[in-house]
Amino acid sequence: MSSEAVRAIGGQHVPYFRTPEFSEVMLENEQLVKRFANASDESRVCFMTGSGTASMEATIMNVLTKNDKAIVVNGGSFGERFVELCQLHQIPYHEIKLEYGHPLTEQHLAPLAGQGFNAFIVNMHETSTGVLYDMPMISRFCRANRLLLVVDAISAFLADPFDMTALEADVMITGSQKALACPPGISLIVLSPRAVERVEQNHSVCMYLDLKLALKNGERGQTPFTPAVQTLLQINQRLRDIEKAGGVESELKRMKMLAQDFREKIAGLPFKMFSMSPSNAVTSLQPSRISAYDIFTTLKDEYGIWICPNGGELRDKVFRVGHLGALTTADNNTLVEAMKDMMKRGLIQ
Amino acid sequence: MSSEAVRAIGGQHVPYFRTPEFSEVMLENEQLVKRFANASDESRVCFMTGSGTASMEATIMNVLTKNDKAIVVNGGSFGERFVELCQLHQIPYHEIKLEYGHPLTEQHLAPLAGQGFNAFIVNMHETSTGVLYDMPMISRFCRANRLLLVVDAISAFLADPFDMTALEADVMITGSQKALACPPGISLIVLSPRAVERVEQNHSVCMYLDLKLALKNGERGQTPFTPAVQTLLQINQRLRDIEKAGGVESELKRMKMLAQDFREKIAGLPFKMFSMSPSNAVTSLQPSRISAYDIFTTLKDEYGIWICPNGGELRDKVFRVGHLGALTTADNNTLVEAMKDMMKRGLIQ
Repeated sequence: MSSEAVRAIGGQHVPYFRTPEFSEVMLENEQLVKRFANASDESRVCFMTGSGTASMEATIMNVLTKNDKAIVVNGGSFGERFVELCQLHQIPYHEIKLEYGHPLTEQHLAPLAGQGFNAFIVNMHETSTGVLYDMPMISRFCRANRLLLVVDAISAFLADPFDMTALEADVMITGSQKALACPPGISLIVLSPRAVERVEQNHSVCMYLDLKLALKNGERGQTPFTPAVQTLLQINQRLRDIEKAGGVESELKRMKMLAQDFREKIAGLPFKMFSMSPSNAVTSLQPSRISAYDIFTTLKDEYGIWICPNGGELRDKVFRVGHLGALTTADNNTLVEAMKDMMKRGLIQ
Repeated sequence: MSSEAVRAIGGQHVPYFRTPEFSEVMLENEQLVKRFANASDESRVCFMTGSGTASMEATIMNVLTKNDKAIVVNGGSFGERFVELCQLHQIPYHEIKLEYGHPLTEQHLAPLAGQGFNAFIVNMHETSTGVLYDMPMISRFCRANRLLLVVDAISAFLADPFDMTALEADVMITGSQKALACPPGISLIVLSPRAVERVEQNHSVCMYLDLKLALKNGERGQTPFTPAVQTLLQINQRLRDIEKAGGVESELKRMKMLAQDFREKIAGLPFKMFSMSPSNAVTSLQPSRISAYDIFTTLKDEYGIWICPNGGELRDKVFRVGHLGALTTADNNTLVEAMKDMMKRGLIQ
C-alpha cells in the first residue's frame, strides 16, 4: 500500500532525468537511506532498476570472488536463491539448511568458527516463511571470525531494527515495494567502505549489474542506464515523509504496533503462527484445516482484501499477512472481521 | 509523454501479481507486441524489469555464444554499447564503425559477405545521433549470408515500420519509455523460434538476465522475479489503445505525420538536420552557432519545454526533439514558437 503522496507521483508525467534536479533527488535518496540504515558516512548506495534478485545477484557478482568462502543461511526460497547464485557464480560456500519456519541458533554457527570462512550471507527476514533471524547473534559470530556480512533486508528494512554500524554489516539490500511502500522496479544496495573496496577491485562480468558503474555514476547522482525514474522520485517522497514523521525510530514503532495489533486481534481464530520469530513486516499463519491458498482466494474474490499466498510446498499450508506501507489498525479490523465472517460461513475452521 | 489513461494507472495501488488476472494481462501483452512487430505465431516475448541495456545484454548473453562470429554496426553510443557487450561476453565480432550521423551503406556490407559471419547486430535507430538504418538492405544481406539478425529497436518500434517476418529478424528489443510511452523500467525482447532455440541451448551465466527462466515463466504469463507490475499494466493499456485506434499502421502514420509536421515548421530556423536518414521518433538538430546544450537548458528553465540534450562529444553540437508518445501538432507549434522567440532574443542564431 503506497501513500497518497507516493501514488500522486505515479500519476504524473515522467521528467527527463539527466538533469541536476534529478541528481539532487538521487543524492538525497542516498543520504536518507544511509541515515535510516545507520550506515557510516563513507558508505555508498547503488540504486538498481530491477527486482530484489537483481541486487542480490549484483552483490554476489561484485562483492565476492572465487577466492572467498561463504556461509549461506537457507531457511526458505530466498535463502535458496543465494545458494543458487553462489553456485552460478562459483563462490565457494557452505549452506546452513534450516527447517522452514525455524530460527537460526548458536548451535548452527558454533561448528563453523575457525573453518576458514570469510563471508556470511543471510536474508535477515526470510520472507517466504516469515522468520526474522537474530542479527545481533549473527553479527557477533561475524566479528569474532572476521567475516564480511552480507544482509538481504529486502522485506526487513524499515520494518525491523537494522543498524549497519552496530552490526558491522558490509552490504544491505532492500527493494522499493516492501517497507519503502513504492511500486516494484527498484532495488538498492548499501555498501560499507570495505564492500566498496571489494567492488572496485573485482572484475565485472555483467554490464547491467556492474556496481563499479553504478558507484561511478552515483557520485553525481546518476545511474549508468535509464532507471525507473518515477519509482526513484516516489522513494524520495517516502523517505522524506519518514524523516518528517520522526525518522526511522518512529517508523519502526509504528510497524511494531501494527503487527502486534493484528496478532492480538486474531487470537480467537484457528491459525497457528508459522514463524517462531516473526518480523514486523509480515505475519505467516498456518490454518488448521483449510487450504491457505483457498483463504487467499476467498478474501480476494469475495471480500476485496489482498493477503499474500505462498508458492511451492507452502502453497496450501501457509498464508502471509503483510503489515508494510500505508496501513492502519482500521485495516487490521477490516481483515480480521472478514476472517471471522469466513469462520461463521465455515470457510475457515 | 504518457496518455492520461496510462498515467491514471500509475496513480493507483499496485495489485499483487501472482494471480490469474495479471497472467492474462501479460499473455495479452505478449500477443499484442507480437502482432505489432508482425512476429510469427511461434515467436516469444520476454518482459524484463530493467533498462534497454538489460535486454541488450540479456540478448548477447543468451542468444550468442563464443562460437559465433558477429557483425556489429557502431554508429553512436548505442552501437558502441553492443561492441562493449560483445567484448565483455567474449563474442567474436567485427565492428562497422560509422561516422556519427552517417548511414550504413552497401559499401560497408559488401566486403563482409562470405567471411564466416553468422550474426548481425544493429540498433535499427541509433538514438544518440538520430540515424535510422536501412533495415531492408540489412535484411537482404543477412538472408544472402544466412546471418542471425539481432535488432535493437528500442526507440524505433511503433515509430518506424518494423516487420519481423518480412525482415526475417530473430531478435527485436524495445523499451517501455520510448514509443510505448510508458514510464521507464521495462524492456522487452521478441525472439523468433530460431532465437528461442538458441536460448534453450545456451548456458546461462546470469540469473537475473536468464531468458530461459523468462520464457518458462512467461508460458503462464508470469515473470521469474517481481516485475515492475504497474509499468506492465500501463504497457497493456497503451497496446490496447493502439489496437483500438486502428493498430500499428495508424500509429506509424500518426508518428510520421508528427515528425514531418515538426520538420516543416522549423524550416526558417538556423538548424541543420544532423541525421542523413532520420527516424520518425526523433529529429536531431545541429544549431549553427549556439551550444545545443544551452538551447536545451533555456527551453527547460525559461519555457518549461523539455527537449533531449546529448552527452559526450555531441553535447554542445546536437540536440534532439522527440516525437514519441502522446504529442500533437499543437505541441510542435508550442516548441517552434518558443524557438522563434529565442531567436528574437538572440539566444538562437
